[in-house]
Amino acid sequence: MKVRVFVSLKNGVLDPQGRAIHHAIEGLGIDGVKDVRAGKMIELDVEDSVTDSQLEEMASKLLANMVIENYRIERLAA
Amino acid sequence: MKVRVFVSLKNGVLDPQGRAIHHAIEGLGIDGVKDVRAGKMIELDVEDSVTDSQLEEMASKLLANMVIENYRIERLAA
Repeated sequence: MKVRVFVSLKNGVLDPQGRAIHHAIEGLGIDGVKDVRAGKMIELDVEDSVTDSQLEEMASKLLANMVIENYRIERLAA
Repeated sequence: MKVRVFVSLKNGVLDPQGRAIHHAIEGLGIDGVKDVRAGKMIELDVEDSVTDSQLEEMASKLLANMVIENYRIERLAA
C-alpha cells in the first residue's frame, strides 16, 4: 500500500526557502503569486499490516519536527 | 487560489534521503516498510489570473530539476 506523508511549516513560522522561491518566480516575470510555502512529501510503500498508529509514530517522531511543522497522512489504494 | 506542486525523484534515481528515512523507521522498530522516497511539496497562493502554462513554467524551470525529477501540479478550490 502506498502512503504519502506531507510535512509543512506551521503558520507563523518563517520560511526562507519559500521566500527564495517566491523571489525567483518574480524573476521569471510571473506576477500574481501572493505566497509560497515550501514543504516535504515522503512517499512510503508499506505492507497492509502497518497500522495507522505506526504511521503516526513515524510522522511525528521522524518526519516532522512537531515544534515548527505539521504533517498530514494520506493512504492511497494499493 | 491555492496551488500545490509535488516534486519527486524519477524512478531509478538514487534517493539517499529516502534510504536514510527508511533506515531510521526500522530503527523505530516498525517493520513492513518496503520503500521510502523523499520529495518536495510547494504550496502557492496565486491570483486567479495565473495560467496553467505559467504554473508549468514555474514548476519545470524553478521547482523541479527535470533531469532527475518529475512534478505534478494540483489546483485547489479557492
